[in-house]
Amino acid sequence: MDFREIIASHPDVQGSTADRLIACIHECLHCAQACRVCADACAAEPMAYDLRQCIRLDQDCADICLATWSLGARRTGRNAELLHRLIELCAEACRLCAEECERHAGMHEHCRLCAEACRSCEAACRAALPEVH
Amino acid sequence: MDFREIIASHPDVQGSTADRLIACIHECLHCAQACRVCADACAAEPMAYDLRQCIRLDQDCADICLATWSLGARRTGRNAELLHRLIELCAEACRLCAEECERHAGMHEHCRLCAEACRSCEAACRAALPEVH
Amino acid sequence: MDFREIIASHPDVQGSTADRLIACIHECLHCAQACRVCADACAAEPMAYDLRQCIRLDQDCADICLATWSLGARRTGRNAELLHRLIELCAEACRLCAEECERHAGMHEHCRLCAEACRSCEAACRAALPEVH
Amino acid sequence: MDFREIIASHPDVQGSTADRLIACIHECLHCAQACRVCADACAAEPMAYDLRQCIRLDQDCADICLATWSLGARRTGRNAELLHRLIELCAEACRLCAEECERHAGMHEHCRLCAEACRSCEAACRAALPEVH
Repeated sequence: MDFREIIASHPDVQGSTADRLIACIHECLHCAQACRVCADACAAEPMAYDLRQCIRLDQDCADICLATWSLGARRTGRNAELLHRLIELCAEACRLCAEECERHAGMHEHCRLCAEACRSCEAACRAALPEVH
Repeated sequence: MDFREIIASHPDVQGSTADRLIACIHECLHCAQACRVCADACAAEPMAYDLRQCIRLDQDCADICLATWSLGARRTGRNAELLHRLIELCAEACRLCAEECERHAGMHEHCRLCAEACRSCEAACRAALPEVH
Repeated sequence: MDFREIIASHPDVQGSTADRLIACIHECLHCAQACRVCADACAAEPMAYDLRQCIRLDQDCADICLATWSLGARRTGRNAELLHRLIELCAEACRLCAEECERHAGMHEHCRLCAEACRSCEAACRAALPEVH
Repeated sequence: MDFREIIASHPDVQGSTADRLIACIHECLHCAQACRVCADACAAEPMAYDLRQCIRLDQDCADICLATWSLGARRTGRNAELLHRLIELCAEACRLCAEECERHAGMHEHCRLCAEACRSCEAACRAALPEVH
Protein backbone atom coordinates (compact mmCIF):
# COMPACT_ATOMS: atom_id res chain seq x y z
CA MET A 1 0.00 0.00 0.00
CA ASP A 2 1.81 3.04 -1.26
CA PHE A 3 -0.01 6.22 -0.19
CA ARG A 4 2.88 8.51 -1.10
CA GLU A 5 2.61 8.21 -4.87
CA ILE A 6 -1.04 9.29 -5.11
CA ILE A 7 -0.69 12.04 -2.50
CA ALA A 8 2.28 13.39 -4.49
CA SER A 9 -0.06 13.77 -7.50
CA HIS A 10 -2.38 16.18 -5.62
CA PRO A 11 -2.21 19.57 -7.41
CA ASP A 12 -1.41 21.50 -4.20
CA VAL A 13 1.29 19.18 -2.87
CA GLN A 14 4.08 20.31 -5.20
CA GLY A 15 6.76 18.11 -3.70
CA SER A 16 5.79 18.74 -0.05
CA THR A 17 4.45 15.26 0.56
CA ALA A 18 4.97 15.46 4.35
CA ASP A 19 6.30 11.92 4.60
CA ARG A 20 5.99 11.57 8.36
CA LEU A 21 2.31 12.50 8.11
CA ILE A 22 1.90 9.88 5.39
CA ALA A 23 3.62 7.30 7.62
CA CYS A 24 1.26 8.36 10.43
CA ILE A 25 -1.95 7.84 8.47
CA HIS A 26 -0.62 4.52 7.19
CA GLU A 27 -0.12 3.43 10.80
CA CYS A 28 -3.60 4.75 11.66
CA LEU A 29 -5.18 2.40 9.14
CA HIS A 30 -3.08 -0.51 10.37
CA CYS A 31 -3.99 0.26 13.97
CA ALA A 32 -7.71 0.66 13.17
CA GLN A 33 -7.66 -2.77 11.54
CA ALA A 34 -5.85 -4.34 14.52
CA CYS A 35 -8.25 -2.74 17.02
CA ARG A 36 -11.31 -3.84 15.07
CA VAL A 37 -10.05 -7.43 14.83
CA CYS A 38 -9.09 -7.44 18.51
CA ALA A 39 -12.58 -6.19 19.54
CA ASP A 40 -14.18 -8.80 17.31
CA ALA A 41 -11.94 -11.56 18.66
CA CYS A 42 -12.60 -10.51 22.29
CA ALA A 43 -16.36 -10.90 21.67
CA ALA A 44 -15.71 -14.48 20.54
CA GLU A 45 -13.74 -15.43 23.67
CA PRO A 46 -15.76 -17.40 26.25
CA MET A 47 -14.66 -14.74 28.78
CA ALA A 48 -16.06 -11.96 26.53
CA TYR A 49 -17.81 -10.24 29.42
CA ASP A 50 -14.49 -9.80 31.25
CA LEU A 51 -12.91 -8.28 28.16
CA ARG A 52 -15.50 -5.50 27.78
CA GLN A 53 -13.13 -2.69 28.75
CA CYS A 54 -10.73 -3.98 26.09
CA ILE A 55 -13.55 -4.07 23.51
CA ARG A 56 -14.45 -0.49 24.45
CA LEU A 57 -10.94 0.90 24.12
CA ASP A 58 -10.33 -1.06 20.91
CA GLN A 59 -13.41 0.44 19.29
CA ASP A 60 -12.78 3.97 20.51
CA CYS A 61 -9.18 3.76 19.27
CA ALA A 62 -10.28 2.43 15.86
CA ASP A 63 -12.76 5.30 15.46
CA ILE A 64 -10.16 7.94 16.29
CA CYS A 65 -7.53 6.31 14.06
CA LEU A 66 -9.98 6.32 11.14
CA ALA A 67 -10.85 9.99 11.71
CA THR A 68 -7.12 10.83 11.86
CA TRP A 69 -6.53 8.92 8.64
CA SER A 70 -9.40 10.80 6.96
CA LEU A 71 -8.20 14.26 7.95
CA GLY A 72 -4.52 13.48 7.51
CA ALA A 73 -5.01 12.32 3.91
CA ARG A 74 -6.57 15.62 2.78
CA ARG A 75 -4.38 18.18 1.06
CA THR A 76 -7.02 20.56 -0.32
CA GLY A 77 -7.29 23.76 1.68
CA ARG A 78 -5.91 23.95 5.22
CA ASN A 79 -6.93 22.76 8.69
CA ALA A 80 -3.55 22.25 10.31
CA GLU A 81 -4.35 23.31 13.87
CA LEU A 82 -7.29 20.93 14.12
CA LEU A 83 -5.30 18.10 12.55
CA HIS A 84 -2.45 18.69 15.00
CA ARG A 85 -4.81 18.33 17.97
CA LEU A 86 -6.46 15.26 16.46
CA ILE A 87 -3.10 13.54 15.98
CA GLU A 88 -2.24 14.28 19.63
CA LEU A 89 -5.58 12.79 20.66
CA CYS A 90 -4.94 9.76 18.46
CA ALA A 91 -1.57 9.15 20.14
CA GLU A 92 -3.40 9.23 23.48
CA ALA A 93 -6.13 6.83 22.27
CA CYS A 94 -3.42 4.44 21.09
CA ARG A 95 -1.58 4.67 24.42
CA LEU A 96 -4.72 3.88 26.42
CA CYS A 97 -5.66 0.95 24.20
CA ALA A 98 -2.10 -0.42 24.24
CA GLU A 99 -2.02 -0.33 28.05
CA GLU A 100 -5.28 -2.26 28.28
CA CYS A 101 -4.29 -4.83 25.67
CA GLU A 102 -0.88 -5.33 27.26
CA ARG A 103 -2.67 -6.52 30.41
CA HIS A 104 -3.89 -9.66 28.61
CA ALA A 105 -1.21 -9.95 25.94
CA GLY A 106 0.03 -13.13 27.60
CA MET A 107 -3.38 -14.79 27.35
CA HIS A 108 -4.67 -13.51 24.01
CA GLU A 109 -2.42 -13.26 20.96
CA HIS A 110 -4.84 -10.75 19.36
CA CYS A 111 -4.32 -8.43 22.33
CA ARG A 112 -0.55 -8.77 22.02
CA LEU A 113 -0.63 -7.92 18.32
CA CYS A 114 -3.11 -5.10 18.87
CA ALA A 115 -0.95 -3.55 21.60
CA GLU A 116 1.99 -3.71 19.20
CA ALA A 117 0.02 -1.91 16.47
CA CYS A 118 -1.15 0.72 18.98
CA ARG A 119 2.40 1.42 20.21
CA SER A 120 3.62 1.72 16.64
CA CYS A 121 0.78 4.09 15.73
CA GLU A 122 1.33 6.16 18.89
CA ALA A 123 4.98 6.63 17.88
CA ALA A 124 4.08 7.52 14.28
CA CYS A 125 1.56 10.10 15.53
CA ARG A 126 4.13 11.75 17.78
CA ALA A 127 6.71 11.74 14.98
CA ALA A 128 4.28 13.45 12.59
CA LEU A 129 3.35 16.32 14.90
CA PRO A 130 6.28 18.64 14.03
CA GLU A 131 5.30 18.34 10.37
CA VAL A 132 1.72 19.53 10.90
CA HIS A 133 1.58 23.31 11.41
CA MET B 1 -35.03 9.90 16.43
CA ASP B 2 -35.06 9.06 20.12
CA PHE B 3 -31.64 7.93 21.28
CA ARG B 4 -32.51 8.21 24.97
CA GLU B 5 -34.82 5.21 25.17
CA ILE B 6 -32.36 2.65 23.81
CA ILE B 7 -29.39 4.08 25.75
CA ALA B 8 -31.50 3.84 28.92
CA SER B 9 -31.83 0.07 28.26
CA HIS B 10 -28.04 -0.49 28.40
CA PRO B 11 -27.32 -2.74 31.41
CA ASP B 12 -24.70 -0.38 32.89
CA VAL B 13 -26.70 2.85 32.55
CA GLN B 14 -29.02 2.29 35.51
CA GLY B 15 -30.83 5.59 35.23
CA SER B 16 -27.70 7.68 34.53
CA THR B 17 -28.54 8.41 30.90
CA ALA B 18 -26.39 11.58 30.77
CA ASP B 19 -28.96 13.55 28.81
CA ARG B 20 -26.68 16.39 27.76
CA LEU B 21 -24.27 13.85 26.27
CA ILE B 22 -27.20 12.27 24.41
CA ALA B 23 -28.23 15.72 23.12
CA CYS B 24 -24.61 16.25 22.05
CA ILE B 25 -24.33 13.06 19.99
CA HIS B 26 -27.72 13.78 18.44
CA GLU B 27 -26.40 17.17 17.32
CA CYS B 28 -23.21 15.49 16.09
CA LEU B 29 -25.22 13.33 13.69
CA HIS B 30 -27.26 16.31 12.51
CA CYS B 31 -24.10 18.36 11.99
CA ALA B 32 -22.32 15.53 10.15
CA GLN B 33 -25.28 15.28 7.79
CA ALA B 34 -25.33 19.07 7.22
CA CYS B 35 -21.56 19.18 6.59
CA ARG B 36 -21.70 16.25 4.18
CA VAL B 37 -24.58 17.82 2.21
CA CYS B 38 -22.83 21.21 2.18
CA ALA B 39 -19.58 19.69 0.85
CA ASP B 40 -21.53 17.80 -1.79
CA ALA B 41 -23.50 20.92 -2.77
CA CYS B 42 -20.32 23.05 -2.94
CA ALA B 43 -18.84 20.55 -5.44
CA ALA B 44 -21.91 21.10 -7.65
CA GLU B 45 -21.62 24.90 -7.66
CA PRO B 46 -20.02 26.32 -10.83
CA MET B 47 -17.58 28.13 -8.50
CA ALA B 48 -16.62 24.80 -6.84
CA TYR B 49 -12.89 25.55 -7.06
CA ASP B 50 -13.37 28.72 -4.97
CA LEU B 51 -15.28 26.77 -2.32
CA ARG B 52 -12.52 24.22 -1.73
CA GLN B 53 -11.64 25.48 1.76
CA CYS B 54 -15.33 25.15 2.66
CA ILE B 55 -15.40 21.59 1.27
CA ARG B 56 -12.31 20.78 3.34
CA LEU B 57 -13.68 22.12 6.63
CA ASP B 58 -17.08 20.52 5.99
CA GLN B 59 -15.54 17.11 5.52
CA ASP B 60 -13.14 17.38 8.44
CA CYS B 61 -16.01 18.52 10.67
CA ALA B 62 -18.24 15.66 9.51
CA ASP B 63 -15.51 13.10 10.29
CA ILE B 64 -14.94 14.45 13.78
CA CYS B 65 -18.67 14.68 14.48
CA LEU B 66 -19.12 11.04 13.45
CA ALA B 67 -16.22 9.93 15.68
CA THR B 68 -17.70 11.90 18.59
CA TRP B 69 -21.08 10.30 17.98
CA SER B 70 -19.48 6.84 17.95
CA LEU B 71 -17.57 7.28 21.20
CA GLY B 72 -20.34 9.25 22.94
CA ALA B 73 -22.91 6.52 22.30
CA ARG B 74 -20.87 3.81 24.07
CA ARG B 75 -21.68 2.98 27.67
CA THR B 76 -19.75 -0.27 28.09
CA GLY B 77 -16.56 0.21 30.10
CA ARG B 78 -15.06 3.67 30.53
CA ASN B 79 -13.03 6.09 28.44
CA ALA B 80 -14.20 9.43 29.88
CA GLU B 81 -10.98 11.41 29.63
CA LEU B 82 -10.53 10.64 25.95
CA LEU B 83 -14.19 11.36 25.23
CA HIS B 84 -13.92 14.71 27.04
CA ARG B 85 -11.00 15.76 24.85
CA LEU B 86 -12.75 14.55 21.70
CA ILE B 87 -15.88 16.58 22.51
CA GLU B 88 -13.70 19.67 23.02
CA LEU B 89 -12.06 19.03 19.66
CA CYS B 90 -15.47 18.54 18.06
CA ALA B 91 -16.65 21.93 19.38
CA GLU B 92 -13.54 23.46 17.79
CA ALA B 93 -14.13 21.67 14.45
CA CYS B 94 -17.70 22.99 14.45
CA ARG B 95 -16.56 26.54 15.23
CA LEU B 96 -14.02 26.53 12.38
CA CYS B 97 -16.52 25.12 9.88
CA ALA B 98 -19.24 27.57 11.00
CA GLU B 99 -16.89 30.53 10.52
CA GLU B 100 -16.04 29.44 6.99
CA CYS B 101 -19.64 28.71 6.02
CA GLU B 102 -20.82 32.01 7.48
CA ARG B 103 -18.58 33.79 4.97
CA HIS B 104 -20.77 32.62 2.07
CA ALA B 105 -24.06 32.15 3.88
CA GLY B 106 -25.51 35.07 1.93
CA MET B 107 -24.73 33.42 -1.39
CA HIS B 108 -25.33 29.72 -0.65
CA GLU B 109 -28.30 28.57 1.39
CA HIS B 110 -26.54 25.22 2.11
CA CYS B 111 -23.69 27.15 3.74
CA ARG B 112 -26.16 29.15 5.84
CA LEU B 113 -27.90 25.97 7.04
CA CYS B 114 -24.59 24.18 7.62
CA ALA B 115 -23.25 27.09 9.71
CA GLU B 116 -26.44 26.93 11.77
CA ALA B 117 -26.01 23.18 12.38
CA CYS B 118 -22.34 23.69 13.31
CA ARG B 119 -23.15 26.44 15.82
CA SER B 120 -25.85 24.30 17.37
CA CYS B 121 -23.49 21.30 17.62
CA GLU B 122 -20.71 23.46 19.05
CA ALA B 123 -23.09 24.61 21.81
CA ALA B 124 -24.28 21.06 22.51
CA CYS B 125 -20.67 19.85 22.77
CA ARG B 126 -19.77 22.56 25.27
CA ALA B 127 -22.93 21.86 27.29
CA ALA B 128 -22.09 18.14 27.50
CA LEU B 129 -18.53 18.58 28.79
CA PRO B 130 -19.38 18.88 32.52
CA GLU B 131 -21.27 15.59 32.26
CA VAL B 132 -18.28 13.63 30.90
CA HIS B 133 -15.75 12.87 33.63
CA MET C 1 -33.30 16.60 12.48
CA ASP C 2 -34.56 18.04 9.22
CA PHE C 3 -32.51 16.73 6.29
CA ARG C 4 -34.99 17.94 3.66
CA GLU C 5 -34.27 21.67 3.97
CA ILE C 6 -30.53 21.44 3.36
CA ILE C 7 -30.86 18.85 0.59
CA ALA C 8 -33.40 21.17 -1.11
CA SER C 9 -30.67 23.86 -1.21
CA HIS C 10 -28.32 21.68 -3.32
CA PRO C 11 -27.87 23.42 -6.71
CA ASP C 12 -28.80 20.30 -8.72
CA VAL C 13 -31.91 19.35 -6.74
CA GLN C 14 -34.24 21.99 -8.21
CA GLY C 15 -37.33 20.85 -6.35
CA SER C 16 -36.75 17.10 -6.85
CA THR C 17 -35.90 16.37 -3.22
CA ALA C 18 -36.86 12.66 -3.47
CA ASP C 19 -38.61 12.63 -0.14
CA ARG C 20 -38.82 8.87 0.26
CA LEU C 21 -35.06 8.66 -0.23
CA ILE C 22 -34.63 11.35 2.43
CA ALA C 23 -36.90 9.39 4.77
CA CYS C 24 -34.80 6.30 4.02
CA ILE C 25 -31.46 7.88 4.91
CA HIS C 26 -33.00 9.35 8.05
CA GLU C 27 -34.08 5.85 9.09
CA CYS C 28 -30.60 4.55 8.19
CA LEU C 29 -29.01 6.91 10.72
CA HIS C 30 -31.59 5.98 13.36
CA CYS C 31 -31.03 2.28 12.70
CA ALA C 32 -27.22 2.62 12.76
CA GLN C 33 -27.49 4.30 16.15
CA ALA C 34 -29.82 1.58 17.49
CA CYS C 35 -27.56 -1.22 16.19
CA ARG C 36 -24.44 0.37 17.66
CA VAL C 37 -26.10 0.83 21.07
CA CYS C 38 -27.47 -2.72 20.97
CA ALA C 39 -24.03 -4.17 20.15
CA ASP C 40 -22.49 -2.11 22.93
CA ALA C 41 -25.20 -3.14 25.39
CA CYS C 42 -24.86 -6.83 24.44
CA ALA C 43 -21.13 -6.67 25.28
CA ALA C 44 -22.06 -5.42 28.77
CA GLU C 45 -24.51 -8.27 29.46
CA PRO C 46 -23.06 -11.04 31.67
CA MET C 47 -24.13 -13.46 28.90
CA ALA C 48 -22.16 -11.43 26.31
CA TYR C 49 -20.57 -14.56 24.81
CA ASP C 50 -24.01 -15.98 23.98
CA LEU C 51 -25.01 -12.75 22.27
CA ARG C 52 -22.08 -12.72 19.84
CA GLN C 53 -24.18 -13.44 16.75
CA CYS C 54 -26.38 -10.49 17.74
CA ILE C 55 -23.29 -8.27 18.16
CA ARG C 56 -22.09 -9.39 14.73
CA LEU C 57 -25.35 -8.65 12.93
CA ASP C 58 -25.78 -5.35 14.79
CA GLN C 59 -22.38 -4.13 13.68
CA ASP C 60 -22.72 -5.33 10.10
CA CYS C 61 -26.14 -3.67 9.87
CA ALA C 62 -24.81 -0.39 11.31
CA ASP C 63 -21.97 -0.32 8.76
CA ILE C 64 -24.31 -0.88 5.83
CA CYS C 65 -26.82 1.67 7.14
CA LEU C 66 -24.05 4.27 7.42
CA ALA C 67 -22.84 3.55 3.88
CA THR C 68 -26.43 3.83 2.59
CA TRP C 69 -26.83 7.13 4.41
CA SER C 70 -23.59 8.43 2.89
CA LEU C 71 -24.46 7.54 -0.69
CA GLY C 72 -28.15 8.43 -0.36
CA ALA C 73 -27.36 11.96 0.84
CA ARG C 74 -25.27 12.83 -2.25
CA ARG C 75 -26.91 14.77 -5.06
CA THR C 76 -23.85 15.80 -7.08
CA GLY C 77 -23.46 13.72 -10.24
CA ARG C 78 -25.22 10.36 -10.59
CA ASN C 79 -24.77 6.82 -9.29
CA ALA C 80 -28.38 5.62 -9.19
CA GLU C 81 -27.90 1.98 -10.14
CA LEU C 82 -25.31 1.40 -7.43
CA LEU C 83 -27.42 3.25 -4.85
CA HIS C 84 -30.46 1.14 -5.78
CA ARG C 85 -28.53 -2.07 -5.14
CA LEU C 86 -27.10 -0.72 -1.88
CA ILE C 87 -30.56 0.19 -0.59
CA GLU C 88 -31.77 -3.34 -1.42
CA LEU C 89 -28.78 -4.75 0.47
CA CYS C 90 -29.50 -2.44 3.38
CA ALA C 91 -33.09 -3.70 3.60
CA GLU C 92 -31.69 -7.23 3.75
CA ALA C 93 -29.14 -6.31 6.45
CA CYS C 94 -31.97 -4.79 8.50
CA ARG C 95 -34.16 -7.86 8.06
CA LEU C 96 -31.39 -10.22 9.21
CA CYS C 97 -30.55 -8.08 12.22
CA ALA C 98 -34.22 -7.67 13.15
CA GLU C 99 -34.75 -11.45 13.06
CA GLU C 100 -31.81 -12.04 15.38
CA CYS C 101 -32.77 -9.28 17.81
CA GLU C 102 -36.39 -10.45 17.90
CA ARG C 103 -35.15 -13.78 19.29
CA HIS C 104 -34.10 -12.07 22.54
CA ALA C 105 -36.46 -9.11 22.52
CA GLY C 106 -38.27 -10.56 25.52
CA MET C 107 -35.09 -10.68 27.59
CA HIS C 108 -33.25 -7.55 26.45
CA GLU C 109 -35.06 -4.25 25.92
CA HIS C 110 -32.18 -2.99 23.73
CA CYS C 111 -32.77 -5.92 21.38
CA ARG C 112 -36.50 -5.15 21.25
CA LEU C 113 -35.85 -1.49 20.40
CA CYS C 114 -33.13 -2.39 17.91
CA ALA C 115 -35.43 -4.87 16.12
CA GLU C 116 -38.05 -2.13 15.91
CA ALA C 117 -35.56 0.32 14.38
CA CYS C 118 -34.38 -2.35 11.90
CA ARG C 119 -37.93 -3.16 10.77
CA SER C 120 -38.69 0.52 10.33
CA CYS C 121 -35.47 1.04 8.31
CA GLU C 122 -36.17 -2.05 6.19
CA ALA C 123 -39.59 -0.61 5.29
CA ALA C 124 -38.15 2.84 4.51
CA CYS C 125 -35.50 1.25 2.25
CA ARG C 126 -38.11 -0.70 0.30
CA ALA C 127 -40.33 2.41 0.01
CA ALA C 128 -37.42 4.45 -1.40
CA LEU C 129 -36.44 1.99 -4.14
CA PRO C 130 -38.94 3.18 -6.80
CA GLU C 131 -37.57 6.70 -6.38
CA VAL C 132 -33.96 5.71 -7.12
CA HIS C 133 -33.42 5.13 -10.85
CA MET D 1 0.42 -4.06 6.89
CA ASP D 2 -0.09 -7.70 7.75
CA PHE D 3 -3.76 -8.43 8.47
CA ARG D 4 -3.32 -12.19 8.30
CA GLU D 5 -1.43 -12.63 11.54
CA ILE D 6 -4.00 -10.94 13.77
CA ILE D 7 -6.98 -12.52 12.01
CA ALA D 8 -5.33 -15.92 12.52
CA SER D 9 -5.36 -15.24 16.28
CA HIS D 10 -9.19 -14.94 16.37
CA PRO D 11 -10.53 -17.79 18.53
CA ASP D 12 -13.01 -18.99 15.86
CA VAL D 13 -10.61 -18.94 12.91
CA GLN D 14 -8.75 -22.14 13.74
CA GLY D 15 -6.53 -22.12 10.68
CA SER D 16 -9.28 -21.08 8.23
CA THR D 17 -7.93 -17.60 7.61
CA ALA D 18 -9.65 -17.28 4.21
CA ASP D 19 -6.64 -15.68 2.57
CA ARG D 20 -8.42 -14.40 -0.53
CA LEU D 21 -10.91 -12.58 1.70
CA ILE D 22 -8.00 -11.06 3.62
CA ALA D 23 -6.41 -9.96 0.32
CA CYS D 24 -9.78 -8.47 -0.65
CA ILE D 25 -10.18 -6.34 2.49
CA HIS D 26 -6.57 -5.23 2.17
CA GLU D 27 -7.32 -4.02 -1.37
CA CYS D 28 -10.52 -2.37 -0.08
CA LEU D 29 -8.51 -0.20 2.31
CA HIS D 30 -6.01 0.66 -0.40
CA CYS D 31 -8.80 1.53 -2.82
CA ALA D 32 -10.68 3.63 -0.23
CA GLN D 33 -7.51 5.61 0.37
CA ALA D 34 -6.92 6.12 -3.37
CA CYS D 35 -10.55 7.20 -3.95
CA ARG D 36 -10.47 9.63 -1.03
CA VAL D 37 -7.22 11.21 -2.24
CA CYS D 38 -8.51 11.38 -5.82
CA ALA D 39 -11.75 13.11 -4.71
CA ASP D 40 -9.73 15.53 -2.59
CA ALA D 41 -7.29 16.22 -5.46
CA CYS D 42 -10.16 16.73 -7.95
CA ALA D 43 -11.60 19.44 -5.67
CA ALA D 44 -8.25 21.25 -5.84
CA GLU D 45 -8.07 21.23 -9.64
CA PRO D 46 -9.09 24.55 -11.24
CA MET D 47 -11.57 22.52 -13.32
CA ALA D 48 -13.11 21.04 -10.15
CA TYR D 49 -16.66 21.67 -11.35
CA ASP D 50 -16.07 19.51 -14.43
CA LEU D 51 -14.74 16.68 -12.26
CA ARG D 52 -17.84 16.45 -10.06
CA GLN D 53 -18.97 13.07 -11.42
CA CYS D 54 -15.48 11.74 -10.64
CA ILE D 55 -15.68 13.18 -7.11
CA ARG D 56 -19.08 11.51 -6.68
CA LEU D 57 -17.97 8.07 -7.81
CA ASP D 58 -14.72 8.31 -5.84
CA GLN D 59 -16.61 9.02 -2.62
CA ASP D 60 -19.28 6.40 -3.19
CA CYS D 61 -16.59 3.82 -3.97
CA ALA D 62 -14.60 4.75 -0.86
CA ASP D 63 -17.70 4.35 1.35
CA ILE D 64 -18.51 0.92 -0.06
CA CYS D 65 -14.88 -0.22 0.17
CA LEU D 66 -14.78 0.81 3.83
CA ALA D 67 -18.04 -1.03 4.59
CA THR D 68 -16.68 -4.13 2.81
CA TRP D 69 -13.47 -3.92 4.81
CA SER D 70 -15.47 -3.64 8.05
CA LEU D 71 -17.70 -6.64 7.40
CA GLY D 72 -14.95 -8.72 5.78
CA ALA D 73 -12.65 -8.36 8.79
CA ARG D 74 -15.20 -9.84 11.23
CA ARG D 75 -14.93 -13.50 12.18
CA THR D 76 -17.29 -13.63 15.16
CA GLY D 77 -20.62 -15.23 14.30
CA ARG D 78 -21.74 -15.55 10.69
CA ASN D 79 -23.20 -13.26 8.02
CA ALA D 80 -21.82 -14.87 4.87
CA GLU D 81 -24.73 -14.28 2.49
CA LEU D 82 -24.80 -10.54 3.20
CA LEU D 83 -21.02 -10.29 2.93
CA HIS D 84 -21.10 -12.12 -0.41
CA ARG D 85 -23.59 -9.60 -1.81
CA LEU D 86 -21.62 -6.67 -0.41
CA ILE D 87 -18.40 -7.88 -2.03
CA GLU D 88 -20.24 -8.18 -5.38
CA LEU D 89 -21.52 -4.62 -4.93
CA CYS D 90 -18.02 -3.45 -4.05
CA ALA D 91 -16.62 -4.95 -7.26
CA GLU D 92 -19.31 -3.03 -9.17
CA ALA D 93 -18.53 0.24 -7.31
CA CYS D 94 -14.85 -0.21 -8.18
CA ARG D 95 -15.65 -0.90 -11.85
CA LEU D 96 -17.80 2.24 -12.16
CA CYS D 97 -15.21 4.44 -10.46
CA ALA D 98 -12.38 2.97 -12.55
CA GLU D 99 -14.27 3.67 -15.79
CA GLU D 100 -14.81 7.30 -14.80
CA CYS D 101 -11.22 7.85 -13.64
CA GLU D 102 -9.83 6.20 -16.77
CA ARG D 103 -11.53 8.94 -18.81
CA HIS D 104 -9.17 11.57 -17.38
CA ALA D 105 -6.21 9.37 -16.52
CA GLY D 106 -4.18 11.09 -19.24
CA MET D 107 -4.75 14.51 -17.70
CA HIS D 108 -4.69 13.76 -13.97
CA GLU D 109 -2.15 11.39 -12.45
CA HIS D 110 -4.38 10.95 -9.34
CA CYS D 111 -7.14 9.63 -11.61
CA ARG D 112 -4.74 7.21 -13.27
CA LEU D 113 -3.54 5.87 -9.92
CA CYS D 114 -7.08 5.73 -8.55
CA ALA D 115 -8.32 3.77 -11.58
CA GLU D 116 -5.45 1.34 -11.05
CA ALA D 117 -6.39 0.85 -7.38
CA CYS D 118 -10.05 0.35 -8.33
CA ARG D 119 -9.24 -2.29 -10.97
CA SER D 120 -7.02 -4.10 -8.49
CA CYS D 121 -9.74 -4.01 -5.82
CA GLU D 122 -12.40 -5.14 -8.29
CA ALA D 123 -10.26 -8.18 -9.14
CA ALA D 124 -9.57 -8.97 -5.47
CA CYS D 125 -13.32 -8.78 -4.70
CA ARG D 126 -14.18 -11.19 -7.51
CA ALA D 127 -11.40 -13.55 -6.42
CA ALA D 128 -12.70 -13.61 -2.83
CA LEU D 129 -16.31 -14.45 -3.69
CA PRO D 130 -15.89 -18.26 -3.89
CA GLU D 131 -14.40 -18.20 -0.39
CA VAL D 132 -17.41 -16.44 1.20
CA HIS D 133 -20.31 -18.85 1.65
